[in-house]
Amino acid sequence: MLDQVEIDDKFWNTRVETNRDVTIQYQYEQLEASGCLDNFRLVSEGEGGGFTGPMFMDSDAYKWLESASYVLATESDQSLKTRVDEVVSLVAGAQAEDGYLHTYFMLEAPEMRWTNRNLMHELYCAGHLIEAAVAHHQATDETDLLDVATKFADHIDDRFGPGDDEGVPGHEEIELALVKLYRETGTERYLDLARFFIDARGRDPSPLADELDRIEEIGGANFNHHDIDAAEISRNHFLNEDGEYDGSYAQDHLPLREQETVEGHAVRAMYLFAGAAMLLTESDDEDDELSVALERLWDNMTGRRMYITGGIGSEHEHEGFTDDFDLPNRTAYAETCAAVGSIFWNQAMFELTEDARHPALIERTLYNGFLSGISNDGTHFFYVNPLESDGDHHRKEWFYVACCPPNASRLLASLGQYIYGQSKDTLYINQYIGSSAQVTVGDATVELNQQADFPWEGTARVEFSVDEPTTFELALRIPEWATNATVRIAGEDVAVDSEDGFARIERTWQDGDSVDIRFPMKVEKQVAHPEVRNNAGKVALSRGPLVYCAEDVDNPVSPQELVISETDSLQAIHHPDMLDGVTTIEGEVSATKVADWGTNLYLPVDEVPDQRVYMTAVPYYVWDNRDSGPMSVWLTTDYVR
Amino acid sequence: MLDQVEIDDKFWNTRVETNRDVTIQYQYEQLEASGCLDNFRLVSEGEGGGFTGPMFMDSDAYKWLESASYVLATESDQSLKTRVDEVVSLVAGAQAEDGYLHTYFMLEAPEMRWTNRNLMHELYCAGHLIEAAVAHHQATDETDLLDVATKFADHIDDRFGPGDDEGVPGHEEIELALVKLYRETGTERYLDLARFFIDARGRDPSPLADELDRIEEIGGANFNHHDIDAAEISRNHFLNEDGEYDGSYAQDHLPLREQETVEGHAVRAMYLFAGAAMLLTESDDEDDELSVALERLWDNMTGRRMYITGGIGSEHEHEGFTDDFDLPNRTAYAETCAAVGSIFWNQAMFELTEDARHPALIERTLYNGFLSGISNDGTHFFYVNPLESDGDHHRKEWFYVACCPPNASRLLASLGQYIYGQSKDTLYINQYIGSSAQVTVGDATVELNQQADFPWEGTARVEFSVDEPTTFELALRIPEWATNATVRIAGEDVAVDSEDGFARIERTWQDGDSVDIRFPMKVEKQVAHPEVRNNAGKVALSRGPLVYCAEDVDNPVSPQELVISETDSLQAIHHPDMLDGVTTIEGEVSATKVADWGTNLYLPVDEVPDQRVYMTAVPYYVWDNRDSGPMSVWLTTDYVR
Repeated sequence: MLDQVEIDDKFWNTRVETNRDVTIQYQYEQLEASGCLDNFRLVSEGEGGGFTGPMFMDSDAYKWLESASYVLATESDQSLKTRVDEVVSLVAGAQAEDGYLHTYFMLEAPEMRWTNRNLMHELYCAGHLIEAAVAHHQATDETDLLDVATKFADHIDDRFGPGDDEGVPGHEEIELALVKLYRETGTERYLDLARFFIDARGRDPSPLADELDRIEEIGGANFNHHDIDAAEISRNHFLNEDGEYDGSYAQDHLPLREQETVEGHAVRAMYLFAGAAMLLTESDDEDDELSVALERLWDNMTGRRMYITGGIGSEHEHEGFTDDFDLPNRTAYAETCAAVGSIFWNQAMFELTEDARHPALIERTLYNGFLSGISNDGTHFFYVNPLESDGDHHRKEWFYVACCPPNASRLLASLGQYIYGQSKDTLYINQYIGSSAQVTVGDATVELNQQADFPWEGTARVEFSVDEPTTFELALRIPEWATNATVRIAGEDVAVDSEDGFARIERTWQDGDSVDIRFPMKVEKQVAHPEVRNNAGKVALSRGPLVYCAEDVDNPVSPQELVISETDSLQAIHHPDMLDGVTTIEGEVSATKVADWGTNLYLPVDEVPDQRVYMTAVPYYVWDNRDSGPMSVWLTTDYVR
Repeated sequence: MLDQVEIDDKFWNTRVETNRDVTIQYQYEQLEASGCLDNFRLVSEGEGGGFTGPMFMDSDAYKWLESASYVLATESDQSLKTRVDEVVSLVAGAQAEDGYLHTYFMLEAPEMRWTNRNLMHELYCAGHLIEAAVAHHQATDETDLLDVATKFADHIDDRFGPGDDEGVPGHEEIELALVKLYRETGTERYLDLARFFIDARGRDPSPLADELDRIEEIGGANFNHHDIDAAEISRNHFLNEDGEYDGSYAQDHLPLREQETVEGHAVRAMYLFAGAAMLLTESDDEDDELSVALERLWDNMTGRRMYITGGIGSEHEHEGFTDDFDLPNRTAYAETCAAVGSIFWNQAMFELTEDARHPALIERTLYNGFLSGISNDGTHFFYVNPLESDGDHHRKEWFYVACCPPNASRLLASLGQYIYGQSKDTLYINQYIGSSAQVTVGDATVELNQQADFPWEGTARVEFSVDEPTTFELALRIPEWATNATVRIAGEDVAVDSEDGFARIERTWQDGDSVDIRFPMKVEKQVAHPEVRNNAGKVALSRGPLVYCAEDVDNPVSPQELVISETDSLQAIHHPDMLDGVTTIEGEVSATKVADWGTNLYLPVDEVPDQRVYMTAVPYYVWDNRDSGPMSVWLTTDYVR
């Protein structure tokens, strides 16, 4: 196994540090301010009543514990450790004798436990508790939170399973958490329980449909807390136009093995698919049907239902997927949490398949649809990441449903997990992010040190320290945007054959060997599939892993008025003082002269008034960090001016 | 005044004849089948009850009478005349002693007369009765229907006016009809009443708002006839998001003189504006404020809120206008009736201003957004005229709310009214449509005979017969699409100065003088204003007055996949046997090879798979006359393949 990876990277350091020093701090303050921690305290006091916040708010504390644990894994921070101890103790103090833990029900409706698994997120919160506990145990070697998690997991396993309560959660999360718990503890029942929750989904009739039928009885007044009308929400999400149950919102429309397309709420889908991929990795038996289904769903998502930023979920109402090629830019949902979920799923897919397409998609998502979710100063967040704006969409400090900031935070705090991969005798370098790590390959210990210039330049250098010469295969991921990639080992060029997306170099590595890679970046114009109707006649600019956008603040005309022609020469220019250092794409292009249209609504091509303007595009992730105004990723391209 | 114009035109003859022989016949049968005529019979029988159809169905009979009268004006058709006599007698027989006439109220709710002027369309039906009566009187010189109309108009004038009932109609129509009635009878009170209805609109508080407040009382059970819930419909149309009255649906949001933008239901708006322009033409005093308002509204409509086809009304729900530049293609409403209304308004504007832009817009609308409403065989009609289709939008024989087919019918039957114009000593030729007419210019009688090759070729010839040499100015409209227009008089070229849109030729005309005009047509690519976001990167093909579209049936790929480049050579080819004779636009263009995209969703520009295909575009008006399939007016243009 890979030991802890420490990030030391020109691009990511400030983000990781701001996350540690500001976001995780702020997040903790929110746990107090929102009443999240008070809910646990009230449960300990045992008097009942007084719950505050949305019914899944316990998960805020768990996500914070997970992020904080990732920090503690690589840094000694006594004040953070003290806080973690306090929160762990609050959580542990609230747990029921029988292992149950969900402060909403314990305070407000103890008799209603497990009656509305669809909406009330008990299993979802349990999953986040487990993820936090595993991270906490790995970081501290202490077992107090892990004990809480296993006790709750045991309680859940006693209740749920074939022949017992065969209900499934309305929001997936516990599946992947249980696989993590199995990995950490070796206890098979957790893996079996994960398998049960995955396999039990999508049956006909669905237990979720049964809950919906009884929603007034089980979800009436008791759940009408804080203006949340469980019955109405559930009906909106789970009834089709004919008033019949349609479980696709929660991937409950078909057994996972039979699903053809990615459907419903995108975060739910990503968590389910991640859990299934992790389950497959841990399963001894081959489960071709499940693995074929995951590949099929991945193809559907990436080939038909994903923004060029890696963002997913086209639609606000269901926060989720719609139809093939339905990718509106202005009204895109593309939730930050869904980007995080996609990274989780792709990491699990890579561990299962060792296929380069998965770290490639992680790269796309990380630098675009995920990173856009966080402001440059690390303190403001997008929940929704559109690809076009009139200038009225801005990051906020926090949200009542505070899923995105903590999800972004735990990803940044665990970024090291996505850089390297390992299988038998192969060491994978999946992401070019400056870092150091210690790896055990066969019997030998290898120390790696990577310096990288991503995402501004496609150059990186990896140095190896070994006690004695060690033979293993090094697999360097060659990004799909890289043409003429070159690799030098110990100063000598090696041939790059990257048919499967990796340059694979088997060699006996000497102490001090280094690998230099160079992936030339050039300004590219990307075109969308012709069935993405709203992108017809448009291009998106990209360079290396970054998708670009034009913001009003940098341009003499509104982004919608820019017209990029084939003959326009666009150049990448690095500005060290702009937006904490960015490479822009700049050049002279055409633009319609809107004012000169006067009262004309239609004009023959040769009478269209145009002008030459100097345009500047910035990386998509950095938009809305300055004066607000229109923004667009997709820019008109037109020879006719 | 211009005497009756007789059409004899290669393009229009079959349409005018089909309208006369098939549509007007079919329309009559519908009057019986729908129960429309029975409503009049039941009123005569005096027993009450039994009303059938929508509450404005009387207008179907009136529109038919109007169309049939236009036919009788130029043709002697005894069987049609007999039917007209019968219907006139049914209508006359149903009129109340006091002049009131609206079969719904007379049969179902006599005590509720005039209580819901917003929705129940009494004044709207009265307007159509008056229009029919004027046409009938002009065609036959008989006064029986005109007597019914004046008696009803007198009744209305007795009730409505300053200091009396100051209510206004929910659907404009009576305003323009009253001006017509004034023109026909010379009775000033009708002009004054038209002025009252126009001026009384848009007051605060509005009488329509008052009716809405009392809607349950006045519009409850009594009006819930045939599943029409007056209360719900009215609230949907007239309450804004905050539940406050917003009269813009019926142009009742502001006094007409203060309106800045065209708002609400498009047909209502056109009828109001037409009425106002006609009122101004008949008014002795200059009314600058009203005339400035009409110019401003015309600029807003044509420069910001009109499809390239002349269609208006972007949105289905309100059948009307939305925001500037909001012109979606697939979901366009662009009702056939609104196109007819736009022609009415522009004719009235021309009579008021003699500005060439108005007949130019009539030409655009006539050959595109209006004509698309009628199938080639003249028996199927579009209510809605989108500019893009997936192949699931088709013409129908008739509609429950049967406004469009009769409106199309009365326009075709009166097409002659739009060809010529006259003021003092100027004779205008506004449309190039084969026809003959007799005109009185000064003291002399001039006979005109026009032959035209529109819309396929821009050539026409006008011959004059005069008893003695006659001096007048001939003003030939030079279409805005015509470049290098040439005019020859009596075989000699004359210089064409068309700064105001007309070539004006003052001359003493000899018997047998002829004018030959030639407006070369070429294939044009039209571009939409850059703020029409959905047309960015697209062009519409046009030639002469016709806008073109690509239909699936003529092309090897779906219209959405065609990509037209600057270097592509597109040619006009006339096919006499295709679609009753059409000139198509054809040529080799590029097309994305959708199949070759495989699972790719985004590709760099230089990897996009393309092919050369032979494309064919047909005039927009003729779409959906063959096998159904996707259609698009706006086609992608892209240099990048």
